[in-house]
Amino acid sequence: MAVMKKIDGGVCAATGFTAGGIRCGIRPNQTKKDLALIFSEVPCQAAGVFTKNRVKADPVQLDQENLRDGIAQAVIANSGIANACAPHGRQAAVRMGQIAAERLGIPAENVMVCSTGIIGQDLDTDVIASQIGTLVLRRDGALEAEEAIMTTDTRPKMTAYSFTAGGKTCRIGGICKGAGMIHPNMGTMLCFITTDCAVSSAMIRKALQEDVRVTFNRVSVDGDTSTNDTCLVLANGLAGNAVITEEDADYAAFRDALRQVMQDLAVMVAADGEGATRLLTVHVQGAKDEETAEKLASAVCQSTLTKAAMFGADANWGRVLCACGYSGAEFDPQKADIAFRSAAGEIAVCAHGQGLAFDEDLARKILSQDAVVIEIRLPDGGGDVCCWGCDLTYDYVKINGEYRS
Amino acid sequence: MAVMKKIDGGVCAATGFTAGGIRCGIRPNQTKKDLALIFSEVPCQAAGVFTKNRVKADPVQLDQENLRDGIAQAVIANSGIANACAPHGRQAAVRMGQIAAERLGIPAENVMVCSTGIIGQDLDTDVIASQIGTLVLRRDGALEAEEAIMTTDTRPKMTAYSFTAGGKTCRIGGICKGAGMIHPNMGTMLCFITTDCAVSSAMIRKALQEDVRVTFNRVSVDGDTSTNDTCLVLANGLAGNAVITEEDADYAAFRDALRQVMQDLAVMVAADGEGATRLLTVHVQGAKDEETAEKLASAVCQSTLTKAAMFGADANWGRVLCACGYSGAEFDPQKADIAFRSAAGEIAVCAHGQGLAFDEDLARKILSQDAVVIEIRLPDGGGDVCCWGCDLTYDYVKINGEYRS
Repeated sequence: MAVMKKIDGGVCAATGFTAGGIRCGIRPNQTKKDLALIFSEVPCQAAGVFTKNRVKADPVQLDQENLRDGIAQAVIANSGIANACAPHGRQAAVRMGQIAAERLGIPAENVMVCSTGIIGQDLDTDVIASQIGTLVLRRDGALEAEEAIMTTDTRPKMTAYSFTAGGKTCRIGGICKGAGMIHPNMGTMLCFITTDCAVSSAMIRKALQEDVRVTFNRVSVDGDTSTNDTCLVLANGLAGNAVITEEDADYAAFRDALRQVMQDLAVMVAADGEGATRLLTVHVQGAKDEETAEKLASAVCQSTLTKAAMFGADANWGRVLCACGYSGAEFDPQKADIAFRSAAGEIAVCAHGQGLAFDEDLARKILSQDAVVIEIRLPDGGGDVCCWGCDLTYDYVKINGEYRS
Repeated sequence: MAVMKKIDGGVCAATGFTAGGIRCGIRPNQTKKDLALIFSEVPCQAAGVFTKNRVKADPVQLDQENLRDGIAQAVIANSGIANACAPHGRQAAVRMGQIAAERLGIPAENVMVCSTGIIGQDLDTDVIASQIGTLVLRRDGALEAEEAIMTTDTRPKMTAYSFTAGGKTCRIGGICKGAGMIHPNMGTMLCFITTDCAVSSAMIRKALQEDVRVTFNRVSVDGDTSTNDTCLVLANGLAGNAVITEEDADYAAFRDALRQVMQDLAVMVAADGEGATRLLTVHVQGAKDEETAEKLASAVCQSTLTKAAMFGADANWGRVLCACGYSGAEFDPQKADIAFRSAAGEIAVCAHGQGLAFDEDLARKILSQDAVVIEIRLPDGGGDVCCWGCDLTYDYVKINGEYRS
């Protein structure tokens, strides 16, 4: 595997990309930045994955159409209004793309349009048209752009790596928003990844599909999936490597780097789930196969009873085994071992499906850390999967009981 | 349909049944009643449905074995310890049945054994053996028995009806515990139903399977299913009707009465979900078929975002439509109408998949009632299904963050 190195710059880490973000007043009473723009100085090969929800926001539908040619050069994204199920959703999405295209002097069909926020209300594109002139694109504009797409996120989510392909140093990085409605098969999440690696849109699509399965699709915050989920990858080729067009070593290097970027962002999304106080990693080892391991890990990750117990730092492993039991996965509960692990140590709580005597004080200390791993070990085979989630807290309820207010 | 009449008496409403409940100290620091006994003066035809969880508590496995002959005469049930995944679970379940059998002078294989509470700890049957002598069986003992099986339930759940079969007046009634881990396919729930109607165990089984599908399996509190779910029906035949052995009019009368009992209890379970402040009924009309309607209603009922919005009395219908969208059901979002309804009125919030202007104050008033109905109307066919659930509240998190403490 090619050597990967963590670098700065997020969605602007790759050569030729600039970004920016402003507050243009999409929701009048909101004071945060709400409009982001990402731009490549040359057209990019591009691909995306989108929500599987039958209710798709208009920008999602527009992007899917515009990506058919595998080419994009910019992303415009707003927060505050999701532009989903809105009376004039299609017009608003189209106009938003046109506004960016005019500002950038590129064809509208090369602009990807994304929205996140409240469903069912019309998006005011006039404020976007009147304010976009004040948005400055900068090489160091990644954080601004990230801030503009955040909703209930409490922390910006950015990462970037360098890697080698075709003897050239390539860079890949991204920004992401998550927080609520995060769930396997893409929860509400916007993720924009850029790279200067030269790679065909077909190969981007392939890598994206491989990688999303083991990264974002293994994150769950609340079991809801949204109308707007979008993950886009734009590759402008300015690194100068020979274009990757088949599954060779360069493809593997690109795919691995993309996976690392997506995994970093996926874990950040899980850790910053709405109201979350801790990141939950559910690690299943020794399941019959990968599919079985994923079913088990995913069920535990989504169990509200387990999530509430994790909030209370309560080593209630019975809920873990119980969630395994209703996961639909094939396994023998009598052969399952369970342990909790964190920076404070590891403690075995269940062996062969039965409770062990354990030190409750140590368990509480382990479960009180910011990042907790639930280890589930089976003797059945090589299925080894991590899923990521978070605890269920008072603040989740508070945030989501009042979201529209 | 035979005339049904609501009557008193719960699980003792039917002739020949007595019940009682005591505190015997299954968990030393718990002061509530924790042991229930239900008894029929003659052996009963009986059937049950049990958790689908792969992890089954020992009493569940024991009952399944003992019910193979379709005969039972008593139920012993404890709360506090689930006797699931416990080192000596089988022995404890067997001994609990023997203790009841000795006390009642009947064969142990005719005693149904049920437990609910914490998973993974051994059940102390010595306290049961030493205290069962103090348990008095009474014709008016239903409430005592109910109190003894409640865990985080805040209200007792009992109902009973009289109906006519074969020209005789029959009675059927039950008690139930629910609260957390309630989910389609039987959440943690114990439900005991008794009747003096004469009906074969095969016909009970048939009616139970028909009825559970449209009652308990349509209740969701938190998406978790438990290791201990059990719903038992005992019929002692003392009403003197000709034994029901085929699907005739008497069978229909029995099945309908059983369904009414189960629906009453199911709705009580939903309304008393852990931490719940209101009962949520999701009613889908006009779906393509029943299966589609059920998928839609069930997804909305389980959406934590919708549940949190209901807690906040927030008319965030976008989350309702969004949950429909990821339900896996076939429908056209562009044809969906959504309204909220309660004792305070009804308000339309979405027509043809798009937001309507509506009076937010009225919406808040409607959603602030104890019982709220989410109406989803489609133009596709005759699929008409209700699912029941509750809101997601701070108290759910509190209760489940501290359950073992």
